[in-house]
Amino acid sequence: MASTSPGYGITIRVEGPPSAQPVAEVTTAITAAGASITALDVVESFLDHVVIDVTCDAIDAEHAKAITASIESHPELTVRNVSDRTFLLHLGGKIEIQSKVPLKTRDDLSRAYTPGVARISQAIAADKSDARRLTIKRNTVAVITDGSAVLGLGNIGPEAALPVMEGKAALFKRFADVDAWPVCLDTQDVDEIVRTVQIIAPVYGGINLEDISAPRCFEIERRLRDLLDIPVFHDDQHGTAVVVLAALTNALKFVRKNLGDTKIVMSGAGAAGTAIARLLVAQGAKNIIGFDKDGLVSEHKVGDEEMRSWFVDNCSPGNFRGTISEALIGADIFIGVSVPNVITELDIIKMADKSIIFALANPDPEIDPVIARKYAAVVATGRSDQPNQINNVLAFPGIFRGLLDGRITKISDLMLIAAAEAISSCVSSEQLNANFIVPSVFDPQVVSKVAEAVKLLGKAGS
Amino acid sequence: MASTSPGYGITIRVEGPPSAQPVAEVTTAITAAGASITALDVVESFLDHVVIDVTCDAIDAEHAKAITASIESHPELTVRNVSDRTFLLHLGGKIEIQSKVPLKTRDDLSRAYTPGVARISQAIAADKSDARRLTIKRNTVAVITDGSAVLGLGNIGPEAALPVMEGKAALFKRFADVDAWPVCLDTQDVDEIVRTVQIIAPVYGGINLEDISAPRCFEIERRLRDLLDIPVFHDDQHGTAVVVLAALTNALKFVRKNLGDTKIVMSGAGAAGTAIARLLVAQGAKNIIGFDKDGLVSEHKVGDEEMRSWFVDNCSPGNFRGTISEALIGADIFIGVSVPNVITELDIIKMADKSIIFALANPDPEIDPVIARKYAAVVATGRSDQPNQINNVLAFPGIFRGLLDGRITKISDLMLIAAAEAISSCVSSEQLNANFIVPSVFDPQVVSKVAEAVKLLGKAGS
Repeated sequence: MASTSPGYGITIRVEGPPSAQPVAEVTTAITAAGASITALDVVESFLDHVVIDVTCDAIDAEHAKAITASIESHPELTVRNVSDRTFLLHLGGKIEIQSKVPLKTRDDLSRAYTPGVARISQAIAADKSDARRLTIKRNTVAVITDGSAVLGLGNIGPEAALPVMEGKAALFKRFADVDAWPVCLDTQDVDEIVRTVQIIAPVYGGINLEDISAPRCFEIERRLRDLLDIPVFHDDQHGTAVVVLAALTNALKFVRKNLGDTKIVMSGAGAAGTAIARLLVAQGAKNIIGFDKDGLVSEHKVGDEEMRSWFVDNCSPGNFRGTISEALIGADIFIGVSVPNVITELDIIKMADKSIIFALANPDPEIDPVIARKYAAVVATGRSDQPNQINNVLAFPGIFRGLLDGRITKISDLMLIAAAEAISSCVSSEQLNANFIVPSVFDPQVVSKVAEAVKLLGKAGS
Repeated sequence: MASTSPGYGITIRVEGPPSAQPVAEVTTAITAAGASITALDVVESFLDHVVIDVTCDAIDAEHAKAITASIESHPELTVRNVSDRTFLLHLGGKIEIQSKVPLKTRDDLSRAYTPGVARISQAIAADKSDARRLTIKRNTVAVITDGSAVLGLGNIGPEAALPVMEGKAALFKRFADVDAWPVCLDTQDVDEIVRTVQIIAPVYGGINLEDISAPRCFEIERRLRDLLDIPVFHDDQHGTAVVVLAALTNALKFVRKNLGDTKIVMSGAGAAGTAIARLLVAQGAKNIIGFDKDGLVSEHKVGDEEMRSWFVDNCSPGNFRGTISEALIGADIFIGVSVPNVITELDIIKMADKSIIFALANPDPEIDPVIARKYAAVVATGRSDQPNQINNVLAFPGIFRGLLDGRITKISDLMLIAAAEAISSCVSSEQLNANFIVPSVFDPQVVSKVAEAVKLLGKAGS
């Protein structure tokens, strides 16, 4: 499914004589090479030479090189420079601090710093809860990772994880005006991680755990939820689960089935899989059959961590003992949060009528969505170049906006379910169709609806 | 020395009939109460009533109440509201995050977040040093405290320290475009502090320790300097020392004395005192006599921590055994980094001709500078309402700008001395006089000169 991506955007500066028709030649070369042009600027135009900057998206780094080479092979064209847009964007990092208060005069300094600030410190020393009103704790979340499970790259460590955490922080600000700070920990010891987060917690109103490998992430989240008086949320688990629930709610509405009547097959029973299953069971799902890399999840095994144990206890396959292909016979819903190419076209043909397929493995799903769409009523993936993108950006900004505004100290499953309902409610009955089951991440009502829903439950003391 | 301060600024909304001449009455009342009006706005003006907002600086909270009461006591005036400017300024904190990259379209997300960001992570995973180029590590400093020695307030803890750290971060950005993040630690155990800073270090290009009580701050700084490959700087020690050295250099130039020929008496041999003494000794000072709360610092004592030991070894009083008053006889320089009212008018009279007095205890100096100025040639304090303010803001922004730009891994005393020289060089020979020995903190050349000086030494590999 190779297609060009803005993540592999390059800008090539090309020079050549007007007689060589460089604009036409470059355009032809790039299109022939299978790339998509996104911008073209004539930078300089003289009688004897023309300089143009052409920007295009490539499939990957190799492809970008091939595109450049194909232009360079033209006898009259010269490549002056190639800029990698993604790398340029990242120079010096993607976020920065800003002061919210004026600092132009001595008087400004006297209010924002010494001696004025001493009164604020005294007020908080007298009443620690005032920190939520008088400091950045009001609006700030820590985005915390140890770099052990970053995107599809695995265990790359804290420095390499930082660009992803910066990006997450930028998204928090962009979508929900939540200030988020990256915390990349140079340890993978669970006790050290828990203690470190506890020690740095005073500055923050909430904790977002990110890209920490299973099963350590479960223990870390559980222990921090016990220790801290601010909410702790592992986005890889709960963000995904919330958006899946929202999408599934609308998909079921579209195909007119009830969750409690459906047979659900899941591929992946790790962090995301278990979190999804928990919300589905809370919403009334009665028949979930799960598979992980070792096959059917049906019995407790020695060394099982807490999430697998929960799955075994709550998602029993009954008497069924078979492969995932066999489980899919007559299944209404398939949810994959695992690896590519786990199920086949034949498997889908055997699913029930008006089936729903969420193939969320990134970047390559469990089944090619184009194939899935030949048979299923609704198909969703994690890809941005397909309809129905299951994107956590629909959830975490609004959820934390609500947690912070509600001064909520503990996050509950009811809040997650309310958030999912808020997201699905952003798709009206008129808008709902097979290719539109979740709102766009740019839909401005998503964050406020989600935040309101979470905040309301915070008031209710749930 | 009570004077009004912007740190105690209030805005009072007053209403009254025009016939009562509210503007004149309010102005009179406030001036009579000893406050200084900084702004007055007529908010509403009707035939039967006028509403005005008057802003003024008070001496302290009690005074602010008294001012309000004096207006309220007027038979025809009503106080509608009193806003505390400093508290208002602090609502929700004083700093925020900003994205530096566009996030308007799906393509923007694909570059700043997934999938584009994965390539940046891969590059850093392959070469960790690339983090300095591709992430916020390039420009970001952690401002770290445990809240154990905050301003003049003492051990108030991490939450109460946060407004001070936010203010510090705002100053870093305002003066040197350095991104600084507050880290307030909920522990005072030295081992935990050292380990925690080590664990969170990957995000940062430098560490600024702040408001950590002596003697723990010495061990913490020393151990972190050994463990980390980024510079570690305790501002309470070295920032103060750098600015003192800069000021003293210019003061000595003014009185035409050489440091090596002078007799120096110091009150305070703690964090700041020892750091100052170290730089003076490095610059050739030969005769420093120090006093702490137990009297003359002359002999090693059991349980001495490392800094006091250094002071004893390097600042020997020779055969002198006496009080601070006795030591000041014929002394050229007095430097106080201790507590108020340590020396008297009589002590100063007995100092050498053309004496230099730096009385830096905050908010009340070791001697009233007005008195000191009757006899000394040059007098400096830490107060913003006196000439020659010894303000660390002259040092830490430029120093970290230089450390970050120079990719410097370890900070050295030579860099601190170079920074001091850069600061003092901002006062030209024409400008130098008894009341102008250091530049204004708003002098734009300070940061670039200091940064250049530090960066140069970083290149030299010192």
